[in-house]
Amino acid sequence: MKEYMRQLGEQAKQAGRAISKADSAQKNEALMEIAEQLELHSEFLNAENQKDLQVAKDNGLDAASLDRLELTSARVAAMIEGLKQVAGLPDPVGEISDLSYRPSGIQVGQMRVPLGVIGIIYESRPNVTIDAAALCLKSGNACILRGGSESFYSNQAIAACITKGLEIAGLPKEVVQVIDTTDRAAVGELITMNDYVDVIVPRGGKSLIERISKEATIAVIKHLDGICHVYIDGKADVDKAVAIAVNAKTHRYGVCNAMETLLIAESIAPTVLPLLAEKYQEKAVELRGCLKTCSLIPDCIKASEEDWQTEYLAPILSIKVVADIDAAMAHINNYSSAHTESIITEDYTLARRFLREVDSSSVMVNASTRFADGFEYGLGAEIGISTDKLHARGPVGLHGLTTLKYIVLGDGQIRQ
Amino acid sequence: MKEYMRQLGEQAKQAGRAISKADSAQKNEALMEIAEQLELHSEFLNAENQKDLQVAKDNGLDAASLDRLELTSARVAAMIEGLKQVAGLPDPVGEISDLSYRPSGIQVGQMRVPLGVIGIIYESRPNVTIDAAALCLKSGNACILRGGSESFYSNQAIAACITKGLEIAGLPKEVVQVIDTTDRAAVGELITMNDYVDVIVPRGGKSLIERISKEATIAVIKHLDGICHVYIDGKADVDKAVAIAVNAKTHRYGVCNAMETLLIAESIAPTVLPLLAEKYQEKAVELRGCLKTCSLIPDCIKASEEDWQTEYLAPILSIKVVADIDAAMAHINNYSSAHTESIITEDYTLARRFLREVDSSSVMVNASTRFADGFEYGLGAEIGISTDKLHARGPVGLHGLTTLKYIVLGDGQIRQ
Repeated sequence: MKEYMRQLGEQAKQAGRAISKADSAQKNEALMEIAEQLELHSEFLNAENQKDLQVAKDNGLDAASLDRLELTSARVAAMIEGLKQVAGLPDPVGEISDLSYRPSGIQVGQMRVPLGVIGIIYESRPNVTIDAAALCLKSGNACILRGGSESFYSNQAIAACITKGLEIAGLPKEVVQVIDTTDRAAVGELITMNDYVDVIVPRGGKSLIERISKEATIAVIKHLDGICHVYIDGKADVDKAVAIAVNAKTHRYGVCNAMETLLIAESIAPTVLPLLAEKYQEKAVELRGCLKTCSLIPDCIKASEEDWQTEYLAPILSIKVVADIDAAMAHINNYSSAHTESIITEDYTLARRFLREVDSSSVMVNASTRFADGFEYGLGAEIGISTDKLHARGPVGLHGLTTLKYIVLGDGQIRQ
Repeated sequence: MKEYMRQLGEQAKQAGRAISKADSAQKNEALMEIAEQLELHSEFLNAENQKDLQVAKDNGLDAASLDRLELTSARVAAMIEGLKQVAGLPDPVGEISDLSYRPSGIQVGQMRVPLGVIGIIYESRPNVTIDAAALCLKSGNACILRGGSESFYSNQAIAACITKGLEIAGLPKEVVQVIDTTDRAAVGELITMNDYVDVIVPRGGKSLIERISKEATIAVIKHLDGICHVYIDGKADVDKAVAIAVNAKTHRYGVCNAMETLLIAESIAPTVLPLLAEKYQEKAVELRGCLKTCSLIPDCIKASEEDWQTEYLAPILSIKVVADIDAAMAHINNYSSAHTESIITEDYTLARRFLREVDSSSVMVNASTRFADGFEYGLGAEIGISTDKLHARGPVGLHGLTTLKYIVLGDGQIRQ
């Protein structure tokens, strides 16, 4: 295993050098050729996917997992569309910024360059294979992909299409390598091959990400939790507050940018909470509140300390009545996972304070936390969301897979 | 020790929140007050520094180390000047970039924010205490500083001035904490307190940095080596080539941005190498070359494989004659520490290729590697140089001690 993984690493490093120099046209050609291969081999993809589904059924996987695993023709079409969209994005590699003359006569600027080799570890959805490969390729990186064992046959089939597409475009096939073993030791190797891999991106459940963060010796771009807060301030517009609080919780439940805790100023709670309770009841959202919340909403369950620390990913919401913005920010400081927080207010000064003082990867005013997303932010696509502070923070798109080096242009200058 | 360090960590985290919100005027006032304190207490600084010098002499430290340790009045003046310069730099905190409307109606941008708590570990020069404190303070971060044991009394004296300055400016004194024990276990704690410290910056010799990188569980901003290359291309202007090759090697020997290996195209080597050899001889630089180099330069020592891997930090230079830019970049690829490389050429296409294809923190055309420096690049000051790819690359100034969070401004938008 060690030998196999080191070989993938060495090949990725070589391929990374080649793809870092490839021009945009060639990278876009590869993306379009991969799309073409998926189209041509849709029957093959379907047949291989059926193998995975059969194994999963035999192993008694639940309906939700089976659904995630299935490569319907709509999902294949979405992968093809995704490839075309990434081909249409501007190429970040080689962008030069802030080039300016210094008193010595040299010109100094920064050039955007690929990171090198990206290792991506993900769970059952096979479409991640295409999304990840497309973003790495476009940003000039080689990648080593490790999908879930449940989608082994599907991922290998997709990998074959990627390889073919790269070859037609004249790029080394090792630019995208999909690990072709389900041996878990491969992951342990991947996340400790510092000589070959520049960054690890884990995508999946919290336990996967925790394990990888703990064991990796390579930098990891990740988020563990999305305990997102909405704070409805005393000066909030009631209509906006209700619309956003409903949307942030109920638009989708199982996503990291859903609101998990609602904070509300005590001055406005008697007006807003009953309105909200009605809306949540319509959608069968279970409410767990502080004492004051429970006094304003019938059928509210008393929240425990654990509730404030929980990412439900379900139709459950914790609610706390707070004195003011300071109490709200203190709560956020204590319990937030630094993913996304939003204030609802018409107060200019409080909005400015919230933006400056809340230390999360996305901080919003009068908008639903559900907007914390690479597509909504205009990144074109995202490989994940980072709640870490270094390098990339928030949704990570093509730029997050690159770095900046300094460039200096001179006419023979020497240091005095 | 663990208890003491955790207490520093907790205090730093609290102070970090306060300093992240402080406005520029207050931070600049603190910097100016610290300068004032250094001025007022120059006799005290001198007396404490004498204690360190006496211990060092008793321990038989060499003259170079004693020199580094000494706080001459010129050096105190330089620290004061440094504080004033940092006060004069633009405040990076709160800068908003790329704020633009999205189709949904939300406005998305990025705000520059402090990292939080920075741990800095450094060796004998006591002036680093001031430089590091000033940069962290201005960038809105709290810091925990650990100086070398040889400069213990000097650092504590400087720390007293910093504390006083912070207090006068109305900022928590825990914004800058200097560890007041020489117990080495303190470093082990500092670099593994993930709950309190966001990034570690080690400054000093290679062995210190290697040890810290290996043992830290927190992200480290660092460079290990500066094996910098100059490549003199066949189309180089001979005068520029000679001036830069001499400057890059001989301007200062003990610095990380000095050239350690000269690569030269074989077409131009017979013209340039004898001219260079003469200049180097004047400065008593020992030359170690490949066979071709030795055939062109008398008194050249045959270079070994080890020479290409060595950062001499001394009047020694390794020289290799190469076929062309591809051979030069292949050598750089193999041996460079990814710090700084420069090409000397008048050829437009080769200059563009070198800039794009060489993967180092600074890549130059027709300029001396000695320019790879925060002051020369216009950063105002630098806390160090990073040869890592993630987060900060090249000289690290105020911006390198900050990160970007996303901000979203809306009027009640919800996700459709």
